[in-house]
Parts: sequence; C-alpha cells; structure tokens
Amino acid sequence: MALYLDHNATTPLDPVVLEAMRPYLTVHYANPSATHEAGRLARRAIDTAREQIAAALDADPSEVIFTASGSEANNLLIQGVARAAREAAPGEFSLACPQTEHPCVLEPMRALAREGFGLNEMPVDAQGVLSAETIRDLPATTQVVSVMSANNETGVIQPVAALASAFRSMHEGCFHTDAVQAFGKQPLSFRQLNEAGVSALTLSGHKVGGPKGAAALLRDRRLSMHPLVYGGGQEGGLRSGTENVAAIVGLGLACERAAQGLDLRLQRACACRELLEAGLRQRGAVVFADAAPRLPNTTYAAFPGMDGETLVSLLDRQQVAISSGAACGSGKAGVSAVLRAMGVDPVLAKGAIRVSLGMMPDAATDRFEVEAFLLQLDVVLGQLRRFAAVA
Amino acid sequence: MALYLDHNATTPLDPVVLEAMRPYLTVHYANPSATHEAGRLARRAIDTAREQIAAALDADPSEVIFTASGSEANNLLIQGVARAAREAAPGEFSLACPQTEHPCVLEPMRALAREGFGLNEMPVDAQGVLSAETIRDLPATTQVVSVMSANNETGVIQPVAALASAFRSMHEGCFHTDAVQAFGKQPLSFRQLNEAGVSALTLSGHKVGGPKGAAALLRDRRLSMHPLVYGGGQEGGLRSGTENVAAIVGLGLACERAAQGLDLRLQRACACRELLEAGLRQRGAVVFADAAPRLPNTTYAAFPGMDGETLVSLLDRQQVAISSGAACGSGKAGVSAVLRAMGVDPVLAKGAIRVSLGMMPDAATDRFEVEAFLLQLDVVLGQLRRFAAVA
Repeated sequence: MALYLDHNATTPLDPVVLEAMRPYLTVHYANPSATHEAGRLARRAIDTAREQIAAALDADPSEVIFTASGSEANNLLIQGVARAAREAAPGEFSLACPQTEHPCVLEPMRALAREGFGLNEMPVDAQGVLSAETIRDLPATTQVVSVMSANNETGVIQPVAALASAFRSMHEGCFHTDAVQAFGKQPLSFRQLNEAGVSALTLSGHKVGGPKGAAALLRDRRLSMHPLVYGGGQEGGLRSGTENVAAIVGLGLACERAAQGLDLRLQRACACRELLEAGLRQRGAVVFADAAPRLPNTTYAAFPGMDGETLVSLLDRQQVAISSGAACGSGKAGVSAVLRAMGVDPVLAKGAIRVSLGMMPDAATDRFEVEAFLLQLDVVLGQLRRFAAVA
Repeated sequence: MALYLDHNATTPLDPVVLEAMRPYLTVHYANPSATHEAGRLARRAIDTAREQIAAALDADPSEVIFTASGSEANNLLIQGVARAAREAAPGEFSLACPQTEHPCVLEPMRALAREGFGLNEMPVDAQGVLSAETIRDLPATTQVVSVMSANNETGVIQPVAALASAFRSMHEGCFHTDAVQAFGKQPLSFRQLNEAGVSALTLSGHKVGGPKGAAALLRDRRLSMHPLVYGGGQEGGLRSGTENVAAIVGLGLACERAAQGLDLRLQRACACRELLEAGLRQRGAVVFADAAPRLPNTTYAAFPGMDGETLVSLLDRQQVAISSGAACGSGKAGVSAVLRAMGVDPVLAKGAIRVSLGMMPDAATDRFEVEAFLLQLDVVLGQLRRFAAVA
C-alpha cells in the first residue's frame, strides 16, 4: 500500500510489539491455566500485560478484563450489566446511548430492547456532541448508558467526564465509555473518569499498534455484571476461554507505548491535520464537525456533488487507502448514521470521506504523506471533473 | 520445557502456520471490512481460511463462523439458539448435555437455567459414555443438546452420530457437538454428522497447531440463532468485531494440516499410548475409561493412594509438564466432575493425572519421550515412597 490513511479502521502492528509477542507464538506456548512451570510463565505474561494497561490508563490491574475485540468488550459491559440487573431484581430497566454510537454499542442495546429493555437513542447537536441536559433527562430506570469518548467517523470528542457527572447526579445506573478511538490520541485516566462517574471503559489493541484479537474492558469492581462467555472461569469468571497470550502480551506493550510521548504525537498530528484540512477546503470540501473538539488524526469531509464511495474507489486505484465511513460489516452502502444524527443534508452526506492519520509511535503519518495525498486527490478530482464535463 | 505432555491443554503453534500468519502480522494489516485494496486482500485471506476449514471438515465455507475461542463458539451456539427460540415463540424450553461436558458448555446452560430454561445434565456410564436411551428420553421441550465428540480429560469418544440420530428421531431441537478435542485426532466429516442430525460443531485452533485466539463454529445454515457479540455485522451478522486476520489465516492452515496424514498420526499415537499405559499399569496405576473408545493421545490415570496434584507438582520440578485434569479457570482444586459423573471412587479420583500426547504434524510425541516420561515418573514415585516410608 503506497499511502495508508485509514488508521481509524486499523493501524499497523508495531514491530516492537510483534517482537515482544514472538516468544509466546513460539517457545512459550503453554496454557496459562496449567499449573506447571510453562503454564505459570504464560500466566505471568498476562499479569504483566494487565499491569502495563493499568499503568497506561491510570487504573488498577484488577480492573482490567481481557476480551478479543472492542466489540466484545462493549457487548460484555452492556449485556452483562443489563442481564445482571434484571436477574437481581424484577422491574423496568432501560438503556441509553447517543445516536452516533458505533454499531457494537447500538446493536447490543437494540437486541436487549427486543428482550424488553427500554432504549433511548439520544440526539446530538449539529456538531455531533451530546449535551448534559439530554443525559440528565434520561429515565430513572436507565441501567446502562454508553457514550463513546471519541467518534470513529468524525473524531468528535464527547465531554465524557461532564456527561458522567450529569448522569450520576440523577441516576444509579452504569456509565460506560467506548474509548477505542480515543485511547492513544488524547490523555485518558480511568481513575479520574471513575471519580467523575464513569464505571467502565473499552479499549482495543489494533487501534494503537497492538495486534487484532486483543482488547480490554476496564471496570469499577463494584459493578455487578454477568459474563458473555461462560466456562472455565478465566478473567475472574467474567470472560472464559483460553487466553490469547501472545495477543495480550502485545496489547500490554502497545498500550504502554500508546500512552508515552503523547504530547509530541498530538502536536505532530494536529499540524498534519491542519495541512490536510486546509488542502481539502481549498479544493472545495466541507469538513464535518469542525467546530467540535476532535481527535487530531481524524478528518471527515465531503465535496459537494461528489460521491464518497466513488472518491474512495478512485483513490484506491491510485494506491491511496482511505474510507467512506466506518469499516465494519461489509459492503454497506447508504448514508452515515452519524451524519444523519448530526442533521447533515443527506445529499452532502453521501459524499463523505474519512481520512484518518497514523498517530502511533511507529506509524505516525507525516506532512509528506499528507502532501502526497493531496496530490493524488488532485488527480482523482481532475478525473471526476473531466468525466462530469464529458457526461 | 524439557518434556511437554499436556497437549490437550494446548499444543504448540506449528512453525509453518506461524510463517503463513506472518504477512498478516506485518505488511497486510488492513481491516478486512475496508473497501480499498488492502482491505480486500485481508478479506480474501479470511475467505481462503474459511475454505480450508470447510475442506478439512467436509463442510461448506458458508457454514463456518469464526470466533476467538472454542468457549466462545460453544456459548454462541448455546445462548444464540436458546435466545432465538425464546424470542420466536413463547413457551417452555430446555437444554441438555452430559454431566461430563466442558464448563464452557455446562456453564452457559446453567446461566440460561437461571433465566428460566430447563436443564438436564445427563448421566453417563462408568466409562463416561452417554447412551442413546438417555438422549431419547429428553423432554420434547429440549431446544439445544450438546454432546462433546471427545472428552478433554478422559479422551472418551462419544458415539455422536448415533446420539444425534436418536435425538433427532424424537426431537425438533438443535444437536451440537464440541469437537475441540476430537478434531485432528479422529476423522470428522461435518457433512456426515449433519446427515445424522448434528446441526453444529465447534473446533479450536490452538488444539491443532493453530494460534490461540481463533476458533470456529460450523453450523447448518437452517439453524436460527442470535449473535453473542452484536455490532458491525461481521460473520454474516453472527459475530461482530474486527476479524483477527492473522489468527484466522493460521487457523485455516492448521485445520488443513490437522486433517492430513491422520491415519499415520493415529497409528503412531496409539503405539505411544500403549507404551505409556503399559508403563503406568506396571507401576500400579489405574487407567480411567479404558474400556471405552478413546482418543489415541489421552491417558487419564491414578495411582491409588497418591495425590494427583502432588504428582503433577513433583513432575514439574523434573521439568515434565502434565496436568491433573482440565486446564481452565485457575487454581481449582477438588475432584474432577468428569470422574464423579463416571462414579469413580472420590479417593481414587483425587489421584488423577492426565498425560496428553502431541498428535499434530509438527508436535507429535514419540516413543523416546514416553520412555523419558516413565523414567522421570520413576524418580518421582521413588521420592513419594521414600517420603511415605519416613513419615
């Protein structure tokens, strides 16, 4: 791939991280539940990763639950807390999240709604931001509310601590945040968030230079929840199944690295994004949510009158990898639900393209790549205009 | 590890498999849901793995659902089918499995029982085998029955096709088999099992020379089921979350290799096990379930009057890795539930040790290792007898 600018979909595995994983893919293969020395060695590697994650996010190692993906961590929290609440006491329960959440939050909530839970998909403003009033007005039955720290498409950062405080002032339920896109791109302290009222947080390895197949849910231990996967009792009974030791080792180191040198990486990404967005605007693009606080690596934009999928496809032919929205499921067409929730004109929304820069230590996009992208964009825009002139 | 004989807990990642995974841990890192060329390349790798698994198990690629572990696949099937049935029509539903099932089958069923499902934990005979009568007598409300193809502790092979036929003759529900321990150690055809009445089958990568973190559920597409993890809609909507591409690639190749040259590997393992069990009996051990059909790599035995945990621990000091039972959860003591179900005297059962030989192409235990094991066992038995004489 000549030019990869789709880092919100996934970012490369850091070679340093792969190197740390290697022994667990070769000689140290034992099952961490085995009581022999080889098993104990694998167990210690998991413990170390748990400590690295806790240190990177200002949490306690005992608060970390390993899962295979951010989607699984979100489902574990949402389904786990909801089902535990229903089993503990009969009554009415409801769930809530902004309309702009990732499907791995929206869909488990919708599934629970089909089982009888109430569900509030909360509106956001034109910048994609959720207000404290909206969350304060949620019904008292709200058992789980989930608000992503930063949006995968727009990069919009929600005021999570303030929203959690607002929720906590009126409600007993659990406030969760999906920090899969935010972690490694902005400072995050689970301790501080927890003090503000956040009970649980999700992060994922492959968004921060770790491997696919490892993610984590950080949760307040007072939270009562059921497992999603029952069985041998791994992860304190909350997530059974033989641990993916190598991937967990990789996740631990990737989190450690993603929390280091963040200031400098933030500065560099901001400079790159400014260059990128200036270039896009110069060529006639509208940048979405540009009045909101956003991740420094994410630009969601549209050229009026141009189709996003077509742009992505033509850029792909030039060996430039970007996205027309979120990368999940496959072959989904239609207008972004995030832009719809923000009230963006559907015609303009059809033109959406997402450029997401690399921000991890070993995969940081530089200004030369941004300039190269703008040059290739000119080629493609030229093609489209010639086509429009002929047609 | 000088001598690793705990292959039922996990077996090493085949170096050939790791080599096939490597490009997906380095250059081919894209998200398979991305529409650009790098994403499509990752998607094709997943498709290839799906075809390899289908070919290895005589199934159709569209029947394969990737998960992160055998535990997850079992939970997906059990919870997914049970919840879909309950949502489709109100009524009484029940679940069933033999008392000797792995916790990742028993525990999700017990969790559903707490939600109101009926549950029949079926008795087995003294050899650990389930009878067709027992399964035929299950209540008509039985929605899911799960019977493992081979037991992880004893190696006992259940007559799955016959049991499925017996169930099917009287019931409408779903018959599932956990083949995590059986696959790669006996011939398996999902097509044939399906014709006999089996609707779904679980296999896991790390038991057959593949990586930890990848497993699969094979299922009849007519089966109505809910996902466990909701979200972006990967795996036909049945298992959301960014695919662990490298691990899936490894699983595909590992399955292909585990199905090849099985006859020869079976012969060799049988010869090794005979040598092992003759040696154990010569030294006074009782071998459990030795009148039942068993996997050729698994020996579950006890020395009357000796504690299994102590034996495992003393052998560990000699750098010999075996197990006192199943490797899951951690630090669990007590008598094996499998032996209890078989009616084994609890005092004898406390002495249980499991020796599981390597059977995969690159990790096959040979007779020299078995002889080395018996030598080390003599050392340890000598220590124990000297201790007993002094005490």
